[in-house]
Order: sequence, then structure tokens, then C-alpha cells
Amino acid sequence: MKRRAFLRRAGAGLAAASVAAPAIAQSHPKVRWRMASSFPKSLDALYGSAEQLANRLSRITDGKFEMRVFAAGEIVPPLQVLDAVQNGTVECGQTAGYYYVGKNPAFAFDTTLPFGLNCRQQNAWMYYGGGLDLLRGLYRQYNIINFPAGNTGAQMAGWYRKEIKSVADLKGLKFRIGGLGGQVLARLGVVPQQIAGPDVYPALEKGTIDAAEWVGPYDDEKLGFHKVAKFYYYPGWWEGSAQGSILVNLKHWAALPRGYRQALETACAEANLLMTAKYDASNTAALRRLVAEGAQLRVFPRPVLEACYKAALELYAGLSAQSAEFRKIYEPWRRFRDEQHLWFRVAENTYDNFVYSADRAARR
Amino acid sequence: MKRRAFLRRAGAGLAAASVAAPAIAQSHPKVRWRMASSFPKSLDALYGSAEQLANRLSRITDGKFEMRVFAAGEIVPPLQVLDAVQNGTVECGQTAGYYYVGKNPAFAFDTTLPFGLNCRQQNAWMYYGGGLDLLRGLYRQYNIINFPAGNTGAQMAGWYRKEIKSVADLKGLKFRIGGLGGQVLARLGVVPQQIAGPDVYPALEKGTIDAAEWVGPYDDEKLGFHKVAKFYYYPGWWEGSAQGSILVNLKHWAALPRGYRQALETACAEANLLMTAKYDASNTAALRRLVAEGAQLRVFPRPVLEACYKAALELYAGLSAQSAEFRKIYEPWRRFRDEQHLWFRVAENTYDNFVYSADRAARR
Repeated sequence: MKRRAFLRRAGAGLAAASVAAPAIAQSHPKVRWRMASSFPKSLDALYGSAEQLANRLSRITDGKFEMRVFAAGEIVPPLQVLDAVQNGTVECGQTAGYYYVGKNPAFAFDTTLPFGLNCRQQNAWMYYGGGLDLLRGLYRQYNIINFPAGNTGAQMAGWYRKEIKSVADLKGLKFRIGGLGGQVLARLGVVPQQIAGPDVYPALEKGTIDAAEWVGPYDDEKLGFHKVAKFYYYPGWWEGSAQGSILVNLKHWAALPRGYRQALETACAEANLLMTAKYDASNTAALRRLVAEGAQLRVFPRPVLEACYKAALELYAGLSAQSAEFRKIYEPWRRFRDEQHLWFRVAENTYDNFVYSADRAARR
Repeated sequence: MKRRAFLRRAGAGLAAASVAAPAIAQSHPKVRWRMASSFPKSLDALYGSAEQLANRLSRITDGKFEMRVFAAGEIVPPLQVLDAVQNGTVECGQTAGYYYVGKNPAFAFDTTLPFGLNCRQQNAWMYYGGGLDLLRGLYRQYNIINFPAGNTGAQMAGWYRKEIKSVADLKGLKFRIGGLGGQVLARLGVVPQQIAGPDVYPALEKGTIDAAEWVGPYDDEKLGFHKVAKFYYYPGWWEGSAQGSILVNLKHWAALPRGYRQALETACAEANLLMTAKYDASNTAALRRLVAEGAQLRVFPRPVLEACYKAALELYAGLSAQSAEFRKIYEPWRRFRDEQHLWFRVAENTYDNFVYSADRAARR
């Protein structure tokens, strides 16, 4: 090969490399993020969902976009995940919006409201009913972009040392429950208790509190409440579904290559679907074990549910009067919910009710 | 710059380019696939889901993995998508497994069975209940790997020229319905009719058939059946949910870069979630319009549903006796379904039933 020809080729190679390298650097750089979770490792449907998300992102990007997940309290206290993302202490977090109703009651819509949307309806609202836009407007004020990334489905109402036979039995009940559910119950005489995770079991055992709620059979079993409070009530009307969210700091979001942003958004949708599927697939066996160990299933009497429903609507009227931001989301949310009920009552609910009763009759 | 130094640098650049280029080629090559859909463009929740999937894949891969979607009949007849993917005529397809029960009745489990799993339960079974593994074993025999990629939710039971007041009214009913639902109804005297999409409306108008079913309000409205058959029945017990699938030819799958495979799998899960959300968000308004135009909503009388339920169980016993492959999936599917009912009847269904009735009472 002539030296000149080699030089031309080498020069061409060099030029190609110079042009290609920044393009590669731009589109597939190595990115390492930290995700702070509000959930402990033991709750594997919740926390495990974040690990699964991180694995998926790594695999889609051939290991270029790596996210390290930290369990509750490892680098950020569980109820300060929003703050840590807002400040950029971490690039992103896994949490539930309703932990932050103290900052702004409108955050409740990002998770659930008492007697609110079920899981399917929440997804319909978020993705096609205007919910995501409204909530992104809220989070933007905190320097954050949010992604729905999991849902527990309808929860249980928790563990009670005594039966709840009437609205009067709620009077003075010391119940470990937070958020808007606690505010609804307070209107009926319940004394809501804020107790951190590890302290709930001893408080219930000693009788310092009368009842405690968490999620549903799969998670509740791990916490062992059935050993100290045998009445297991349903439905958990304050969480007819509960959506988890991935929060991302807006500055870090903007700096992320476009393909990675797309991968993150898609993987969050997958996480949303899979968390519900995992809970649904796991709850029955856990419920069977709990009942075998002595848990007594109880449904709330209808008058109790009706009193709570009425109190919830009053609470929402009050919050709407106090907070323009709550009202701004509540009004379209309420209309959407009412419309959803019209449709769901027709095919979906009639179908479910029939197959459950036919299946039950067939087993007799 | 000295010529020797330049040469060294140029050489280094060339070497870097030589090394980098194949690595880039391996991990992010340009890939163009064709996807044949079983659905027409007009059904935008079904067909549109495939377009959305293709867009997402393109955006995750910075335009490197492009999928061109062809509507029903454009390059492959709607009910031959599986065959086209099996033969490699197209790399992948969007379809519903139960279109292929003529090849093997076990394909029904990839979509739905009469009185089968609802949407949440189908996802629980597919992703965490062993369903996906069982169905992948089935599709593998056809040189295909399958991905759940959409669900309509519970469907309506279609449009009837006359009311169905008793099991006797099913006798001789010429009903446009396919698959296992048609086989169940045939046991009760219905004459199932296989009629291609465009021919259904004129057949119903002329009275050549007495009834026809499709999906639900959002799709049914577009087909205009309410203009020629006013009784709109529910629930569509032969489709308590209906899952759509993306089928990929195994040879093309194996040749796909690992990151693209991961992106495809994730985007299918997103499509699964979003299709249901879109139907749920869109059905109410369509139902309102249909009722405003004269549709009469009717629920099947309970004795009719019970007779159909019994006939379905008899059909499954027969199929299990005839087909080892059907039985292999049916037995674990049936156990999973029974277990799901135990849990869903507790928190989820009790919650739904209460909020629907409370909301209804509040509107009065």
C-alpha cells in the first residue's frame, strides 16, 4: 500500500471515528443512577418491582443505563423520597404520592382516595383520562416528573382485636392508619395513629392500639399481625387500589439520552402491570395460610361502609374548599370516576359477579 | 505535527474505529421488520396498539429497530397471521390466539375461554401463574414465541333482533359468533354462524342472522349494529376478557440483538396495559351514544347464564378427553382460576360492588 493511500484511509478512519464517537457518546453513554425506595426489601412485590425495573433498563441498554436501588432508609428516609428527588440528592425514587398529602392534598390522586378508582379505572384515568397530565403539572412544581409504576389492587382493611359491628364500634378505636383514610375515619370517632412499620406489631400486641392496616394477605402475612389481632376486615375502602410511582428529578431527566427516557417510561408501564399481576397471583395462597393460622375474615357491615362513604364525600368537599390544587384535580377525577362506574357496572361487574357465584355453587 | 506522530494517531484512530464498528453493528444494527395484524385500521384500540408498539420500539432504539405494521389483509389474511409468522413470511404478527383453535384447541388459553379469567386474572396467570410458560411451549411447536400485548376487558354479548328471555329462546338462534363460545351455545340449540366482518351488518339487517357479537361499545359503535338490532346484551360471558398477542418467528427472534429483544418484550407489556386502559376510558362515552341512538341494554337472565356455564364445563371435559394438549393447560388453568376467585371475591369484588351501589344511590 502506498503511504499516501494509507494516510487517506487512516485519515478517513480517523474522521469517521471522530464523527462517530460523539454520536455514540450522545446516544449510548454509560449512565448510573441511584433510586431511593420508600419500601423495605422484605416487601418483595413493592421493593422487588424497583429491582425488576432496574434490571430491565440495564438489559434494554446493554448495561449502559444502570440504576442502583436503595431500600427504605438506606440513603433516604422512607417518607422523604419526594424531597430527595426534588433536591437531586438522588436522580429518582420509588414511592407512593399519598405519603406527601401533608405538602399538598392533591398528591393523593397519584395513589388513591377513599372509595376511589379501582386498579383498571386508575390506569384508564392516568393514561387516557387526563390523570397523568394533571399529576405531572403538580409534580413539576417540585422539580419532578412522575411515572405510574405499580398497583396493589384492592387492599384489605387490616387487623382488629375486636369486631366492628356498627358505626358506634368505630368510636375511640385506636387505629394505625394514615392519610385521607385516617381523616375520613376521624370524622366517625376513630383515633388515627401514625406508627412507623417496626413499632406496629408491639403496639398491637400490647393493646396500645386496637387495629392496624397495611396492604393485603401477601404483605400482611410477613408482618405477622394475625398473631395479635385475629379479625381481618375487608374491603380496604381507603385503598380500592393503590398506585406506586417512580419520581425522576427533572434536571436529570432532561440530561438523559432520548432512548433511555423512552426505555424508562416503557419499563415503568411494565412495572405497573407486573406488580398488580404479582399481587393477584400471590394473595390467595397467603390468605389461605392466614385463615389456617386463625385469621377470621370479616366484611364491614353495610351501614359502616355507608357512613364512611358519606364522611369521605364531606372530606372531599372540605379539601376542595381549602385547596385550589385539590379541587382542580378532584372535579375531573370525580366526573371520570362516575363515568367509569356506568361502564364497569355493565359488562365487567356483571360478569365477575356471575362467575364468582356460579363457581361457588359448582364447588358445593 | 510530525508525519510519524500523525500516522500513529491516525493508526490508533483507525484501530479504534475498526474495533468499535463491529461492536456497534452487533448491538445496534438497523433492523426492519414487518408485522401483520389480524385487525383493520378502523379498530384503533386493537390495530392502534400495534402502531403504538412499533413507535415505542423505534424511539427506544433511536430509530434502529423499525417495525412496519400492516392491517388485516394488506399482506396476510386476518386469520392466517399465525401461519405467516410460522413460515417466516413476516417476522411477527398481532393477533388473538383463539383464532387458531381449529389447529389446536389449546390456543384458546392465549385469549380467553367462556367463563374464564377476567383481565387482571389473565395477567396474573400469564406472568406469575405459569400461563406464559405453558403457552410458549404450545407456540414453540409452531416456530413462534408469543407475548401478551393487549386485553379488551369484559366484552358485551352483542346485538339481538329479539329478546332472550329464557334458555328456550336460544333454540335455533342464528348467531354470528365463533370459537368456543359458539360451541357452548350450539349445545343449547344456537346455530353459530361464521361470517366475515363486512358481511355481518347486511346479514343482520336482512334477518339472515338473528344476532351478532363483536367486542364492546367502543368498537361496536363503529360497526353500526345498533341500527339493525336494538337489544344489546351483557355480559359477554365467552369473553370475560380477551388477550391479544404479538407472535414472533423464532428464527428472527434469535437473530435480534439482545437489547432489542428486551425492548420488544417490555413494549409488549406496556401495550398490554395500555390497550385495556384505552378501552376502559373509551367505552362509557360510546355506550352513552349507543343508548341515545336507541340501543336497549339487556342482561342475560340468570337461568340462561347458568345453562351456558354448565354447557361450557361439559365442553371443557370433552376437549380434555379429546386433546392431551388442551388438558395439559386446562387443568392448571382451572385450578388457578378457582384460586383467583377465592381472593377476588374478598377485597376486590366486595369493594367494586359497594362503590357502584353507593355511587348509584348518591346520584338519585
